[in-house]
Amino acid sequence: MSGDDAFGRALLDSAEGRPGAVVVERDDGFVFQEGGRGFYEAPFRRWEPHERGALRYARGRVLDVGCGAGRVALELQNRGREVVAIDASPLAVEAAKLHGVRDARVLGIEDVDESLGRFDSIVLYGNNLGLLANAGRARRLLRRLAAATTPRGRILGGTMDISTADDPEHQAYFARNAARGRLPGQVRLRARYRALASPWIDWLFLSKPELEDLTAAGGWRVARCIDAPGGRYVAVLEKRSA
Amino acid sequence: MSGDDAFGRALLDSAEGRPGAVVVERDDGFVFQEGGRGFYEAPFRRWEPHERGALRYARGRVLDVGCGAGRVALELQNRGREVVAIDASPLAVEAAKLHGVRDARVLGIEDVDESLGRFDSIVLYGNNLGLLANAGRARRLLRRLAAATTPRGRILGGTMDISTADDPEHQAYFARNAARGRLPGQVRLRARYRALASPWIDWLFLSKPELEDLTAAGGWRVARCIDAPGGRYVAVLEKRSA
Repeated sequence: MSGDDAFGRALLDSAEGRPGAVVVERDDGFVFQEGGRGFYEAPFRRWEPHERGALRYARGRVLDVGCGAGRVALELQNRGREVVAIDASPLAVEAAKLHGVRDARVLGIEDVDESLGRFDSIVLYGNNLGLLANAGRARRLLRRLAAATTPRGRILGGTMDISTADDPEHQAYFARNAARGRLPGQVRLRARYRALASPWIDWLFLSKPELEDLTAAGGWRVARCIDAPGGRYVAVLEKRSA
Repeated sequence: MSGDDAFGRALLDSAEGRPGAVVVERDDGFVFQEGGRGFYEAPFRRWEPHERGALRYARGRVLDVGCGAGRVALELQNRGREVVAIDASPLAVEAAKLHGVRDARVLGIEDVDESLGRFDSIVLYGNNLGLLANAGRARRLLRRLAAATTPRGRILGGTMDISTADDPEHQAYFARNAARGRLPGQVRLRARYRALASPWIDWLFLSKPELEDLTAAGGWRVARCIDAPGGRYVAVLEKRSA
């Protein structure tokens, strides 16, 4: 079961009318339930207000990274925008296509290059800044995204400042990370769905100062942040040279 | 984390205003979400119709086995009935008391004896016939419950006929059980809640013919069944000698 595309299967099952619960397991054994109330398929009016509000900053031609079931690509497409949706999961891409995304491709963020053409905006919603995984990978990926964007290019990235978490068990997890020289919000996770278990991955949650540091090294700056309760926010990154 | 009272902790957290998701993990890695929409704390009007309907058969002095957060004991108590609620989990018993159950005690079904006094009815709702665990234990426990009840004693037991399951993965699990000489519905489970994981236990789902067999050996007979969708039912057991 380990190594399965648990999350993609859940998205595709749901797209095909068999919704099921995804469980996210942290490497300390902590379990979370994910995707309640149709989060991954939500139409724009049911998005969280900060994601709705920040979408105005997605200008021009847009790349939707980690598109999942396609909610962001669909909204942009409905607004008449040119949008390319990518996801590393073939099953997620299939789900996005079933939902009506016209240009959805199987591609991981680490394989984004000029073959997709240049983008004016790159959207990483639903905490998808987490795909940056860790500090080293974040710098490399941000430089890669800089190369894939026009000089006026923007990144709209969603994440959560976990330093505001008031749960002692979560605080302890973040403190252990820091003690090991990792970013506190570098969280090792896997998805469980039915009898499927995805590979373990690192998922990165970033405070605003941490994001400032990483983006600077990657060729970007934080132009503004749109905040939400619980420490969540969407950061609008612009190029340092711009 | 293994060996924790994950389920009891979840019930108590919820009783104290911190509801959280319980995940049930089967030993083949299949994960289920449990207790959605306040199931364990539901007032009578939000119970499933077959459990509501079958409660009329609970006469006299009642033992509520595996009381959890106490929804069944509370309803009987509100009807002015004498009810003793037991649960093997100290945290669940604490939750039941917080919800207002007056006589809730830490006791497993395998320790029920005459020290509790005799009961006219024993209620095993919420699939709690599952506590019978396997065929051998079921016969022993049913004899023990017979000794704890009056000659007119009844058991109201909830379970599910899993032979009607149309999911191929579940069917395969049940078939493997049968091939190993176990009852098909003998399911090895553990509860996960936050970073807690309960011990693995066997939980028994029974078809009506299987229940007939086990109850006969345990001194009972199936007087009637009240059915619900999905193969679920409440069986009303009466003593063979009665």
